[in-house]
Amino acid sequence: MPNSMMAVAKPQAAPGVEIRDVPIPKLGPIDVLVRVKVASICGTDLHIYNWDRWAQGRIHPPLIPGHEFCGEVVAYGNEVTSVKEGDFVSAEMHVACGKCPQCRTGEAHICQNVRIIGVDADGAFAEFVRIPESNIWKLDPAIPQEYASILDPLGNAVHTVLAGEIAARTVAITGCGPIGLFAIAVARAVGAAQVFAIEVNEHRRRVAAQMKADVVLDPSKDDVLSTVMQRTAGLGVDVVLEMAGHPEAIRTAFDIVRRGGRISLLGLTSKPISLNFSEDIIFKGLTIQGINGRRMYQTWYQMTALLKAGKLDLHPVITDRMAMKDFSKGMERLTTGEASKILLYPNGTK
Amino acid sequence: MPNSMMAVAKPQAAPGVEIRDVPIPKLGPIDVLVRVKVASICGTDLHIYNWDRWAQGRIHPPLIPGHEFCGEVVAYGNEVTSVKEGDFVSAEMHVACGKCPQCRTGEAHICQNVRIIGVDADGAFAEFVRIPESNIWKLDPAIPQEYASILDPLGNAVHTVLAGEIAARTVAITGCGPIGLFAIAVARAVGAAQVFAIEVNEHRRRVAAQMKADVVLDPSKDDVLSTVMQRTAGLGVDVVLEMAGHPEAIRTAFDIVRRGGRISLLGLTSKPISLNFSEDIIFKGLTIQGINGRRMYQTWYQMTALLKAGKLDLHPVITDRMAMKDFSKGMERLTTGEASKILLYPNGTK
Amino acid sequence: MPNSMMAVAKPQAAPGVEIRDVPIPKLGPIDVLVRVKVASICGTDLHIYNWDRWAQGRIHPPLIPGHEFCGEVVAYGNEVTSVKEGDFVSAEMHVACGKCPQCRTGEAHICQNVRIIGVDADGAFAEFVRIPESNIWKLDPAIPQEYASILDPLGNAVHTVLAGEIAARTVAITGCGPIGLFAIAVARAVGAAQVFAIEVNEHRRRVAAQMKADVVLDPSKDDVLSTVMQRTAGLGVDVVLEMAGHPEAIRTAFDIVRRGGRISLLGLTSKPISLNFSEDIIFKGLTIQGINGRRMYQTWYQMTALLKAGKLDLHPVITDRMAMKDFSKGMERLTTGEASKILLYPNGTK
Amino acid sequence: MPNSMMAVAKPQAAPGVEIRDVPIPKLGPIDVLVRVKVASICGTDLHIYNWDRWAQGRIHPPLIPGHEFCGEVVAYGNEVTSVKEGDFVSAEMHVACGKCPQCRTGEAHICQNVRIIGVDADGAFAEFVRIPESNIWKLDPAIPQEYASILDPLGNAVHTVLAGEIAARTVAITGCGPIGLFAIAVARAVGAAQVFAIEVNEHRRRVAAQMKADVVLDPSKDDVLSTVMQRTAGLGVDVVLEMAGHPEAIRTAFDIVRRGGRISLLGLTSKPISLNFSEDIIFKGLTIQGINGRRMYQTWYQMTALLKAGKLDLHPVITDRMAMKDFSKGMERLTTGEASKILLYPNGTK
Repeated sequence: MPNSMMAVAKPQAAPGVEIRDVPIPKLGPIDVLVRVKVASICGTDLHIYNWDRWAQGRIHPPLIPGHEFCGEVVAYGNEVTSVKEGDFVSAEMHVACGKCPQCRTGEAHICQNVRIIGVDADGAFAEFVRIPESNIWKLDPAIPQEYASILDPLGNAVHTVLAGEIAARTVAITGCGPIGLFAIAVARAVGAAQVFAIEVNEHRRRVAAQMKADVVLDPSKDDVLSTVMQRTAGLGVDVVLEMAGHPEAIRTAFDIVRRGGRISLLGLTSKPISLNFSEDIIFKGLTIQGINGRRMYQTWYQMTALLKAGKLDLHPVITDRMAMKDFSKGMERLTTGEASKILLYPNGTK
Repeated sequence: MPNSMMAVAKPQAAPGVEIRDVPIPKLGPIDVLVRVKVASICGTDLHIYNWDRWAQGRIHPPLIPGHEFCGEVVAYGNEVTSVKEGDFVSAEMHVACGKCPQCRTGEAHICQNVRIIGVDADGAFAEFVRIPESNIWKLDPAIPQEYASILDPLGNAVHTVLAGEIAARTVAITGCGPIGLFAIAVARAVGAAQVFAIEVNEHRRRVAAQMKADVVLDPSKDDVLSTVMQRTAGLGVDVVLEMAGHPEAIRTAFDIVRRGGRISLLGLTSKPISLNFSEDIIFKGLTIQGINGRRMYQTWYQMTALLKAGKLDLHPVITDRMAMKDFSKGMERLTTGEASKILLYPNGTK
Repeated sequence: MPNSMMAVAKPQAAPGVEIRDVPIPKLGPIDVLVRVKVASICGTDLHIYNWDRWAQGRIHPPLIPGHEFCGEVVAYGNEVTSVKEGDFVSAEMHVACGKCPQCRTGEAHICQNVRIIGVDADGAFAEFVRIPESNIWKLDPAIPQEYASILDPLGNAVHTVLAGEIAARTVAITGCGPIGLFAIAVARAVGAAQVFAIEVNEHRRRVAAQMKADVVLDPSKDDVLSTVMQRTAGLGVDVVLEMAGHPEAIRTAFDIVRRGGRISLLGLTSKPISLNFSEDIIFKGLTIQGINGRRMYQTWYQMTALLKAGKLDLHPVITDRMAMKDFSKGMERLTTGEASKILLYPNGTK
Repeated sequence: MPNSMMAVAKPQAAPGVEIRDVPIPKLGPIDVLVRVKVASICGTDLHIYNWDRWAQGRIHPPLIPGHEFCGEVVAYGNEVTSVKEGDFVSAEMHVACGKCPQCRTGEAHICQNVRIIGVDADGAFAEFVRIPESNIWKLDPAIPQEYASILDPLGNAVHTVLAGEIAARTVAITGCGPIGLFAIAVARAVGAAQVFAIEVNEHRRRVAAQMKADVVLDPSKDDVLSTVMQRTAGLGVDVVLEMAGHPEAIRTAFDIVRRGGRISLLGLTSKPISLNFSEDIIFKGLTIQGINGRRMYQTWYQMTALLKAGKLDLHPVITDRMAMKDFSKGMERLTTGEASKILLYPNGTK
């Protein structure tokens, strides 16, 4: 084992990152050290990089960001029993407290005291990352490394899609960032009867079509409401998965959902949203759900099972692959709106 | 049988009503004629009386309003098989179409083509009312007439309370009009661990206490949030039943509900409501439900069973009893804010 | 319109049927007359043909059997509003009473007073069949006639598969008669992670493989338990769909299901089944469901949506097509164990 | 702290116990030592005492039995963070592994590797008991010690009652041992419309009446089926909680449950049970559940909330109180069939 490692570091409270040589994390008795094979970039990482208002309020540098990855176990503390060297793993990066009422009743994904590795503690944009044993997710070697590195956002999609009935239902996905794109694949895999993808960005719409959405709509040009009504016998869709967080997308969600339908909200909003509760929710008898993280660990079992069964083709979402040290180039690519998921390789490009 | 009957009539598109002598309704083959024993006044009737904007858009006079009642079967059409003369009955006044997808999948309470007797067709503020057999609800004679006349709003309360888990849960009810007050009794009857009643009107708070809410709060004076937090170990309530429709009550609902909790919305709003979706819904992992009418006929079975078992003491909510011809006095009483449920007797005061 | 029609008739309480010329059914005000395009044979029809003990206790000749079909509307009573001449339709043949508590709470599939067309009243093995409007199911012309004629058993499969969580779950189907075979297709379409088909009959196993079961096992030769355990990481399957009704298949179901799993029972048994409740059910924390008919009409919406979306390839199950007048040949074919679903054409072979 | 303690010990594989002076348990880093205030006797303890076949197969002496208790924290290991000296506590005695799929998906009550304190490790029939921190349940001092000592069986009852819809439902409880008796109180507290208690033992029927079952029946004399049908309008009960484990009680359960009803099985059987699956389960569209232990820790939150709210009067079930050293007398009392729950006090009778 070397003594130090390459990492993408945020050394102080300011925009940007630095590629640095830092000490390899020390392990406590329940920790596992993982050599990162592939990591991937989330929108959150762009916020941290840009040091925007959200980042200023939440992040305490120095920090190594990164919360999507896969790798190989290289060491572990003396109380660890469930992994061994060489295991192929990813991890749930929300570390729940295990002691609050939510944690003790199967709702650890909304733990009151959650800490997120890569946000509140050093993460995976490095050669090695330290993870508590409870959060390690062992992977079948049959699962491709590229997919193994994007289980965090894929899990968001699986959690959202499976938060209610979906088989034989019509589904609209508003917003086709990576999670929205994954949701197309997941919804199809679990028997959605018709998937509408609604997205303003042209690149994303192109990928949505590659993911085999049945109908891809541009809300800046297409008449979304009338198209949906026409294709659902005037009923509206059974389910909307809201993944844009944009006021107009949310307005569309409430317009196109049928009476008695479900809206699952995942896309974070930066502005207040105004609704007419009577017309939008009550008379329609809607169910609206806030979706956070991944169910621990139901979602992980579900997505692993779908991947292992070969039910998900996620390749169109992976648009870029680069060396981890070129992290800043990844940030530029994301800013163009022409990249979806960007993979980073600590040991140079794939 | 007489040829005509006394009725509270809205003869034209203008405020007020008239007490008139009108023909007794004619029966089709599937209709049932009921002699009204007791009817009761709903907030909707006040809108119709005052001829406010909502009424102007929805009501087409001439109309006999009234959708809460009980009575006795006196005649029926030749295809009717399930009732006989003398049966003690009430009725579900939402007449669902039976043919839309919602009706055909057990969701008739959100039928796309619903017609409401007393709103879209002549109702129960009269000596007799005509109801289709499908909507008649036969009652055990053990159920008191006073309760039998308020099953419509009691059903709203039962539907809302039982729309999710409630046993051993902490519950807040925002808004203590009659439905909110009924909801206190229902929540207690089905094992809510603690019931908070939140209401600005003094009379209503007094009744809420009589209904045995564990904690009654005046949001204009009390610190609702800190009281709830103190009495729920800092967690917030598991369930909010929102029955006010007022922006501040809705704000309170989202503030006091715990992570992973449920908000069931029944109170109709007249203004847009603004929410911060990320903080208010998504991070909290909430479930929000729009509640409309009563489940046909699950809710009716449930409330009848609770009443027959003697689990509900609703008397404190019934504040006034008067002759039906004194309907306008009832309107005045409601306007004072000092009346809750007002019962009307077609044959003079009780 | 002709005055009479060809029908497969069971004239008296004895084995066999006769091909007869009988009067076309007369319509009441809510009835629809359908010209049968394709009908199909169910195991029930074999019981009726053979006049076995079950048939002797249940069937009251004269009777025209047949409860799986599709056709075209040719006439209807004067209260019918939702169909018109030429509509392509099938029908739910369980006619629920609409008045029992089950019917009034969305559980019409277990109506206390159900009558089955083709069992308790003249059915679809004829040129025309009479159906009450409420039970007609209008079909998109895009759905192939062959599939439209087998919606009754397909609906059994859809009902069973979707009676609990299925996406990303491992599933075993014990018994691969037509409904079991359909269940393979449905389970795959809605995202089952792995489908085990367990069947002693060689022909059926061959079709199960054509339906793309992941693993097809012969319980008379294969070690079912160890194969399932090996392929589920020692856990057992999440879900068993029991469609054999045979004691050994049921024993297998309880052996291979995981702790906390679901067993949905559809296969009718002719003998008592013995279980060790403590070991088989209680310690395992199982959920066991009895599945009857199709949910009215949720199941119909679901299967229509799946068919219209092209998610189900059912062709391997349809092994025989013949003229309806050759009904007795169909009975012979079924008896060989080498036929699965047999289609009948009133107007000669397809 | 003393060095040794009084304990009820099973020193070898033979009937009986001995009162012994044994060392106080040593603590690991995550253990908590509790001074037992009250413990109580379960039927399991009688099996262990009598050294019957079940005990011979499961128990490995030497063992201190006892898995129902409450007490006070007196010491804890150095990694324990959630309790302090003097805390009033009880404990979940099923120690789940935390690593199997059941544990990782919120189903720890059916953990594949569970160990039970008092069965697989030294338990609470002693002055002190060692419990891992994860399993400690802190109690509000408002909860009476007597109730705090019986949370394990009360939790079985709460788990069973709340395993499906119960509010406004009719419920039959077959078998009125302590858990069945508790279930009467819980069912009433959460709004069951009518509770039938069915029990052959006269003492238990008397207590069932004290627990306010609406109808108490002796199956050796009363016509249970006709009484239930008469009082449920010919429908049968919505829910049966089977707590006898006896073939006749189970037969009754299937006879009296309505179409579409639920049977929750808790009572362990010692013989195979024979059912006619078609008539008993499938045509009725039943749901049958195996119930094991208590949900960790949903059930604990639920029962604590009900107790704290004063919704449960459990006193009639507590029939005997004695010094712990008189354990063998407790065994005799249980054998008479005239005792329900027996409380043991390590420091002499209460």
